[in-house]
This record gives sequence, structure tokens and C-alpha cells, in this order.
Amino acid sequence: MKKLLLLLALCAGTAMAQEALWSGSQVTSPVVNADGTVTFNVVAPKAIKVEVTGDFLPPQRIETAMGTYEAPGVAELTEQNGVWTYTSAALAPELYSYSIRVNGMSILDPSNVYVNRDIASLTSIFIVTSAKGDKGDLYQVNEVPHGDVAKVWYDSPTLKMKRRMTVYTPAGYDKGKNYPVLYLLHGAGGDEDAWTTLGRAAQIMDNLIATGKAKPMLIVMPNGNTNCQAAPGAWSKGMYTPSFMGSLDQPAVASMDESFPDIVKYIESHYKVAKGKKNRAICGLSMGGGHSFATSKRYPDMFGYVGLFSAGLHIGGDNQGKSFYQLLQGSPEVQGQLAKLFAAKPFYWIAIGKTDFLYQQNADLRRYLDEKNYPYEYLETEGGHIWRNWRIYLTEFAQKVFK
Amino acid sequence: MKKLLLLLALCAGTAMAQEALWSGSQVTSPVVNADGTVTFNVVAPKAIKVEVTGDFLPPQRIETAMGTYEAPGVAELTEQNGVWTYTSAALAPELYSYSIRVNGMSILDPSNVYVNRDIASLTSIFIVTSAKGDKGDLYQVNEVPHGDVAKVWYDSPTLKMKRRMTVYTPAGYDKGKNYPVLYLLHGAGGDEDAWTTLGRAAQIMDNLIATGKAKPMLIVMPNGNTNCQAAPGAWSKGMYTPSFMGSLDQPAVASMDESFPDIVKYIESHYKVAKGKKNRAICGLSMGGGHSFATSKRYPDMFGYVGLFSAGLHIGGDNQGKSFYQLLQGSPEVQGQLAKLFAAKPFYWIAIGKTDFLYQQNADLRRYLDEKNYPYEYLETEGGHIWRNWRIYLTEFAQKVFK
Repeated sequence: MKKLLLLLALCAGTAMAQEALWSGSQVTSPVVNADGTVTFNVVAPKAIKVEVTGDFLPPQRIETAMGTYEAPGVAELTEQNGVWTYTSAALAPELYSYSIRVNGMSILDPSNVYVNRDIASLTSIFIVTSAKGDKGDLYQVNEVPHGDVAKVWYDSPTLKMKRRMTVYTPAGYDKGKNYPVLYLLHGAGGDEDAWTTLGRAAQIMDNLIATGKAKPMLIVMPNGNTNCQAAPGAWSKGMYTPSFMGSLDQPAVASMDESFPDIVKYIESHYKVAKGKKNRAICGLSMGGGHSFATSKRYPDMFGYVGLFSAGLHIGGDNQGKSFYQLLQGSPEVQGQLAKLFAAKPFYWIAIGKTDFLYQQNADLRRYLDEKNYPYEYLETEGGHIWRNWRIYLTEFAQKVFK
Repeated sequence: MKKLLLLLALCAGTAMAQEALWSGSQVTSPVVNADGTVTFNVVAPKAIKVEVTGDFLPPQRIETAMGTYEAPGVAELTEQNGVWTYTSAALAPELYSYSIRVNGMSILDPSNVYVNRDIASLTSIFIVTSAKGDKGDLYQVNEVPHGDVAKVWYDSPTLKMKRRMTVYTPAGYDKGKNYPVLYLLHGAGGDEDAWTTLGRAAQIMDNLIATGKAKPMLIVMPNGNTNCQAAPGAWSKGMYTPSFMGSLDQPAVASMDESFPDIVKYIESHYKVAKGKKNRAICGLSMGGGHSFATSKRYPDMFGYVGLFSAGLHIGGDNQGKSFYQLLQGSPEVQGQLAKLFAAKPFYWIAIGKTDFLYQQNADLRRYLDEKNYPYEYLETEGGHIWRNWRIYLTEFAQKVFK
């Protein structure tokens, strides 16, 4: 009753008009129905055409002079009384991204406040789940103990700047000790926010730890762009437009792998974690897979577990027209580093999608490992270079480390 | 060079098409020009009318049967080759919110990834600054030491749930000790995310602390909706549509003021903070101002500093048609609580906008304080019940506490 009165007081006068400059929508969208179909509702009385496009629709194959590529599918909404509607087929459990097109112009779903940023694109998101333990269930917030997520500024003497990273500490951290640490790296165009938004890392870890499938561990998500202090908007460069190249086209004083000990040093001096390679794992997607490859071979005694997720592998020197296998064969330096790494016997894990454009690189690396008789585990999934795969890879890798 | 090669590898094939499902915009918007004007650019070749609306434009006065209210101003963009453009007048330093209207439909600026959520509305944002120490400068990320910001789950036995709050620890926290704590509360419709997004609390504190204007302190931003564990999307209720009433229309087992010691206990047992009322301040906006009023009088020895920002004050019982002054006069219980609070001599601070719909309530409280000869400081600003004022009030109050 007290609250009702307060509420009435707060609703009176112009509070609403003043506080929320723009009112919310009159419809609910999206609606995840009990049968797994999803209904989209958009109020657009003046529109001529309203569509929805997203990764929940079967992709279209687009033929261009540059080759064939897949683009997200598009479905048309139908209109009644100014409200446009579309109901999907029943969808498999997953986190989906979509946007609405009104007369050809892409917008977010006006009724959905849940948004992810991928480089410079904002998209609306929703989750479909139907059973305990399915992917949707794993990516949503469940009634389980939650870890804390912090944006932390650490000192990187190697890169000569203070830098921001995201640190997940598992539920119960305040009472525990000697936690192992998984270093989880993003791809090109990403930043220290990517794994907790697009990657749902906190939800995946909460849910895996709560069901005993993964050990309680810290997840450390640094920024892999060595010339940036932090994600766009979070440092003194201001509110610039993020770009795939934007984070890489300025010189940096050192590489990510060279500077990695700064991160480990900060974590091990500020958190209740266990030291030694048995308590450290490194993994990452795309460029972050490349960083995991490079850091683990540069510091062969640092990590007991290495995970390459759709890794973008590279080796310096004259790479013109050479396969990754040829580059490996042509670099005594890298071969020497890898020999030292193999001697330290880390658990080595490689995962990639069947249609990933980096498939051959990773096949080349597997060929090299096979020739050296170095054991590794390998996971091949459907699809390409997409977050849907990277969430699966984190889920799998997190269950394999520190056991 | 290594990075360039990696980049080329990552750009090859279908990576771009696969990773970022929707490409970024071809224009930059908004552009804050050197003279303080701001240019908006929207690619909309098929549009008939494109407008921008936001709090950077002079408000419109709208007459309705319910009375007169102010709505944000609207300006029309002009089109050339499918790109619509508008340049504002020179703007005062401030954080501004806006949205674009295409054929009457409100959308975010497609070229701006910087977005704030206020209840169920997403709006695009930008900052104008022209000199060190002005409001824009204070709200932006500057090249100063940054505090860490964590989303922390604490136990509330009083509310019978684990709950999420935002904790700012100042730069240097890892090396310091005995920090004072400012508890900073949001309004109705808000949550533990509001002060660090709409309120720019981390930037304000970083900048005030770096210039010596405020003491290094923790800022603790709990969730004031006692029937919620966390912000929308961050707890097991899922991705529901936030509403002004949504967070309050379910019963809770206790009130915010009753449960407040759970928060203080968690902070004082988990952080390097000083205890005692001289090291604790409480303040909040609107409903959070009401929570600050209620908590400080309920626990008169808990806080040495109390700040009411456009406070929504309330007193239980039969409130029908009574002014807040009459309610105070009619409640021996509240008078007794306030007498005990006055005896503990906290610093009391009240701030409100001249056109705020809660102005009279706060004038009534000041009348009561005057009659009791209880000293307080008072700040009256232009405008109403808006974030622009609450950022000013935090800036002012943070410089007054713990000194």
C-alpha cells in the first residue's frame, strides 16, 4: 500500500513525460511461444513493407562477382490495423539475433530493449529454450548462484598504458580460494565486452558450475587490441565508431602475446587464484585464437590448457601465397617454440566450423600436430565463423579444463 | 606488418558477412563540430520525412485535456542523394539523448552505437564539451585514472533473495584502505544499472577524484525494487519488458529501507572500507530520494550524510488529499524518527528542479526542517524531474561528503 501511494505520487504530473522522453511501444515483441515459434510485432501504420531478418531464418545464398556468400534470411510481416506481425517456424534452442526492416531500412525491434553490439552493429536478441541443459537454457540467466562480473583497469607496462578487462569471479568466490583461471580472448573487431554480451560467458559459466559440469574458475576477458585501452566509449578516445579495422590500424608498442604476462601478473596479485600452468588455461576465438596460439608458444610454461576457437593463425615473414602448413615448415623459430610447448605437454584443443574460412589453416595446424605426434582434441561443428559456434566452444572447453 | 597480414586473412572470404550480420552505416552520425553544433546524418533514400527529436532541442509545450506538458523538440532533416542531414545550434556542454523519426517512426540513430536505456526506451546519446571541468568534460571518459565497476551479487536475508548491485571502487583501491562509501539510489523504473549509464556515475567520480574535488570513495548502487533480484535481463525472470510499474506491482517481503542493512553489511565485510556513520553517505533520485529519507530516519546512526535528489517522499497511513507537511504533522512516529535522526546530526542536503512535480513535497520537508531548526543545504536548479539534474546533484553532493 505504501508503495502504491508512492507510485501514484511518482506517476502524477509530468514525471513520465520528463523522465522517459520517449514512451515504450504498445506491443510486445518478440514473443517466444510455448511451441518454440516466435512472434514479432511491429507498430508501423505508415509503412509499406516490414520485414524481419536474422539468424533464426534459413540463410539466403547470394551470388556476386566476388563469389557466393550466405546472408541472413528475410521474412515479410503482414499488417492489420497498423500492427505488422510474423510468426517463425519452431526454433531450436539458441540465442538469436535479428533486426527489423521498415521500407528497406534496418532498425532494432522497437519493442525489444535487449540488444547486442557486434563491432558497429546493434541487433535485437532473444533466447529460445525448451529443456534443462539445452543451449537456450545454458545461455539464459537461471535460478542458480551467479558469479560477479567486473570491469577492471590493470597496468600493462609492456603496452605502456592502463587497460580494461572483464573479470568473472564464480559464485562463492568470497568464501573460496586457489581458483584456476581461464583467459578468454575475443576476435578482431571485438573488445573486453564481447564475451559477456555476444558470448554469454557469465551465464554459460554460472550454469555449468551450478550443475557441476565445470569447476569454479575465474574467467578473464582482456582487450586484445593492443593500441586500445578499452572498448569503444570506455576510454579517452571518446564515442568513436567501432570498426573491424579501427582497432588495428594504429601502431602499438608490443603484441598481445608479448604483453600477456602483464595480465597474468595482475590477476595473480589481485585475486585468490592458484598459480602454475595447471591452473591457467588460454583460449580465444578468431584473432583471439591466434593470440592463444602465439601466447602459449611464446611462454610454453605458462598455460596447461590451450583452446583455439576458429583460430586466425599467423606466422611472420613472407607469407605471400603460402599455406599455413608451408609457413610452419618454413619457420625454424616457430618450430622451436612449438617443440618447447609440446615438451611442456599442455592440453591442446582445436574447434572450427565446417564452412569457416579459416578451416584450412586449422587443418594445416592439425596436420603439423599429427606429424609431431602431439595429442590434441578436435571438435568440428556445422556452420562458419559465427558466435553461435564460439558459445558452443566455450561450453565444451570450460568442461575440459582444470580436471 | 604481422597484424596487417592477420587482418587481411580475417577479412578474406566470408568472415565479415558471417560475423557481423548487418553492416555498419555509410555515414558518421552524430558529428560534434568544433563550434559546439552537432550534425546528424541518416541514410534513408526511400524516406518521405526524417526528423530528429531530443533534449538538445528547445522543448515544445503540448496542451492536452489533462494539462500542459513539455515534450522534446523536433527538427526536420533535409535530403540530398538519399542522405538526410540536420545541424543543431551550438549546444551547451552536456550529455544529450535523441532519437530519429523516419516517416513518423522513432528509431535509434543507425550510425551511433552509443545507447542508453531509460525504463523501456532506448535512445542514442552524445556528449558536447568545450572546456576542462564543464559538464560534458565531467561526463566523458578522460585520460585520468579509472575506478573499477563491478556487478556484484549480495545476500539479502531480509528480502529472502540474492540481489545484484553495482559497485564502483576508485582508482588506487587495490593499494589503499579505509575508504568511505556513498550509497547511490535510483528512481522508480530504474535499476542497479541506471546510475552508471544514464547517470555517468563512474565518469563523474573518476573526474572529481582525479582533480581532487571529491575524496576517493566507493559508490554502491543497489537495486531499489525490492521484489526484483536485478535489472531486467540480469536475473531469472528473463528478458521481460521493463516498465515504470513493472518492478513495483508484485509484493515484496520487506521495504528497501528495512532491508538496507543487508547491503551495508555486505559492503563492510567484502571491501576495504571504513565503518561508522562518518564514513557512510546515502543519496538517491526520486524514489531513491524517498529511500534515502526513509532509511536514514529508520537507522538514525547509520549515515553521516543524507542527500535527497528530487525526492519522492512518502509517509504511510491515510494520505488522502494531504500535503506532505500535513502528513509530517500528523505522524508522531515519523516525527519521533526524525528527532532521533536530528540528534545524530547528519549533514542533510536537498536538491530539486524548479519545475519538478515533487517541488512542493520537498518545500514541505524544508519547512519542517526550518521549524525544527535543523540545518541543511539546499540546491534549486532549472528544469524538472530529469537525469540532467540528477547528474548535477551527484556532482555537487559527492564534493560535500566525507570532508
